[in-house]
Amino acid sequence: MIGKLVKEKVKSGKKAINELYNTGYYGRPKGDVLELTLVEAAYLLYKNKLEITLDEKNLGFEEFFTEASKRQQFFELKYIVYKDLRERGYYVQPSVTDFRVYPRGGHPGKTQAKMFVYVRSERVPMLLKDLLTQYNAALNVRKQMILAIVDEESDITYYEVKRLDIKGEMEQTLPLEQPASVTMLEDRVLVWDGETSRLLYENGFYGKPLDNERLQLSLVESAYLLDNGIIEIKNSNGENIPEISKFSEIAASIDPDFTRKYSAYVDLRSRGFVPKTGFKFGTHFRVYSEVHTTDKLPHSNYLIHAIPHDHEFLLPVMSRAIRLANSVRKQMLYAVEFAEKIEYIDIGRIKM
Amino acid sequence: MIGKLVKEKVKSGKKAINELYNTGYYGRPKGDVLELTLVEAAYLLYKNKLEITLDEKNLGFEEFFTEASKRQQFFELKYIVYKDLRERGYYVQPSVTDFRVYPRGGHPGKTQAKMFVYVRSERVPMLLKDLLTQYNAALNVRKQMILAIVDEESDITYYEVKRLDIKGEMEQTLPLEQPASVTMLEDRVLVWDGETSRLLYENGFYGKPLDNERLQLSLVESAYLLDNGIIEIKNSNGENIPEISKFSEIAASIDPDFTRKYSAYVDLRSRGFVPKTGFKFGTHFRVYSEVHTTDKLPHSNYLIHAIPHDHEFLLPVMSRAIRLANSVRKQMLYAVEFAEKIEYIDIGRIKM
Repeated sequence: MIGKLVKEKVKSGKKAINELYNTGYYGRPKGDVLELTLVEAAYLLYKNKLEITLDEKNLGFEEFFTEASKRQQFFELKYIVYKDLRERGYYVQPSVTDFRVYPRGGHPGKTQAKMFVYVRSERVPMLLKDLLTQYNAALNVRKQMILAIVDEESDITYYEVKRLDIKGEMEQTLPLEQPASVTMLEDRVLVWDGETSRLLYENGFYGKPLDNERLQLSLVESAYLLDNGIIEIKNSNGENIPEISKFSEIAASIDPDFTRKYSAYVDLRSRGFVPKTGFKFGTHFRVYSEVHTTDKLPHSNYLIHAIPHDHEFLLPVMSRAIRLANSVRKQMLYAVEFAEKIEYIDIGRIKM
Repeated sequence: MIGKLVKEKVKSGKKAINELYNTGYYGRPKGDVLELTLVEAAYLLYKNKLEITLDEKNLGFEEFFTEASKRQQFFELKYIVYKDLRERGYYVQPSVTDFRVYPRGGHPGKTQAKMFVYVRSERVPMLLKDLLTQYNAALNVRKQMILAIVDEESDITYYEVKRLDIKGEMEQTLPLEQPASVTMLEDRVLVWDGETSRLLYENGFYGKPLDNERLQLSLVESAYLLDNGIIEIKNSNGENIPEISKFSEIAASIDPDFTRKYSAYVDLRSRGFVPKTGFKFGTHFRVYSEVHTTDKLPHSNYLIHAIPHDHEFLLPVMSRAIRLANSVRKQMLYAVEFAEKIEYIDIGRIKM
């Protein structure tokens, strides 16, 4: 069977519709013509199921592959992923993302496609905006969104991307009758009173004991407790920091991520979680669904990193974050604020 | 016992030398005076072993702690670490880094200190240059260099920092009689010939098979094989890329880290390692000491990231990298080039 290379397509005749489309769902029949993408054609050439000509001349695999890579950006990446999916037994068609993949046992004409696959090189940073565009395209037609990242050595890692509506089970009990007086020192806040320290630590798992009397609060915890009227904060000169806006300003000068982290913190608390720092995992928070006693902490299920709208994922960094989360049996979520609402984006490795 | 707060010291008398220094090695005796640092004094105040006065007025813990944090930068951080070390049973003295720590069972006057401890906040990026200054200070007096990082919630993670002279066991056999012709496509290089592909892959674990005939080489692998006369690289228009310098220029335009990665790659190969991409771990390389057959890869012991001289460690990122390496039983090393020599810096978590 012969296909002709025409711009970014390879076109073949009626026989190809019978032998390639009807048996393997390669290409798209348009009348009597079967139209193949460059990756499909390269794969069929590799499988010796198709010969390809350009200007009446036969192209070998090397010639066609080189030619195709000049005609289509990221051709090699897409070929690597297409071949991998085909060899895993999936039927694959082109789509608005890169590929539309049919469920095992399904195929065009019989079933709906199940996944949209979006191919990226590890080397090219990925804008959150672009990821969400692809995600929404998949969501609109109720497909799973799969991100396929090809590394320098052409290994592929597959991730499923989805929004998650998470809920914790911690009931808020804010136990103080009147605000406790605490001091902001350099970059943390100290609670001096033993009884207050105990109450905050035991009810809601705020802070960390400095010793058996005093408690240290992180900046987000302090802001949250201040905003809820649980504490009053003074600085080391004994002057009051009366408002959350003033405190936030100071906190943001210490921690450039403060504002974003604080929005996520407030949202997580309102969803019934207990957020604590995720420093050891390189993320903003680890969160607990519930903490009944600080003597025996439960497993925390999520690691959460608050990112801005214009976030650019460096893919090796993302890969590491997700892998580390998985290695400690946690899910890695990215928190993004849209129109004053926080959304949680779950990017999780999957086996295809 | 009473100590007087004078600038950044607390001074006490002869009795304190007997009761605090001779029994617990707090402070430094200077004639009849015992001179305590602010953290030592705060700890003794907390332990009710000392009262502290300023202008004849007694200071409570809250007052002294607040005052000390105004007089010394990062006082709280240092206090947190000092207290932790003391409570773990170590004798601690001030040093050119932050603390000098005596081995278990040892103390000033009896034994040499064993470690230098350098305290950092997770929030403040750490220059490689500063880390090495501290490391060299410790090395010069043959101490272990310990980095104590205090996170937002005042949790401490301890790391040992050292230089490592690593050696692999892979013998180089470069098997081709004449250079093989390969093609550079967009951002990777393809070997078309089946026999060459097999030889490169099986002898030295270069590249990754695209299929049973063709091999894909990464940019660093291609540069290395080109420089050793094993391959000849042409671009997709069939033009030769004759020299390593030209190829490196193209590669650096694709991957900004290329030059640094390539120096480390060459050094690792010359030390008998097989370096492969560490993308899945978020680092430049994972390295194998030896690869005899690609059918069954051995465990790789190191993850290696090539960093520049002026590298600034973001500590949450560093924490994540080391933690991930440990979770897959690998050591995280940073490769830095000094005077055309690559050095490997091992930053590993330790239990104190």
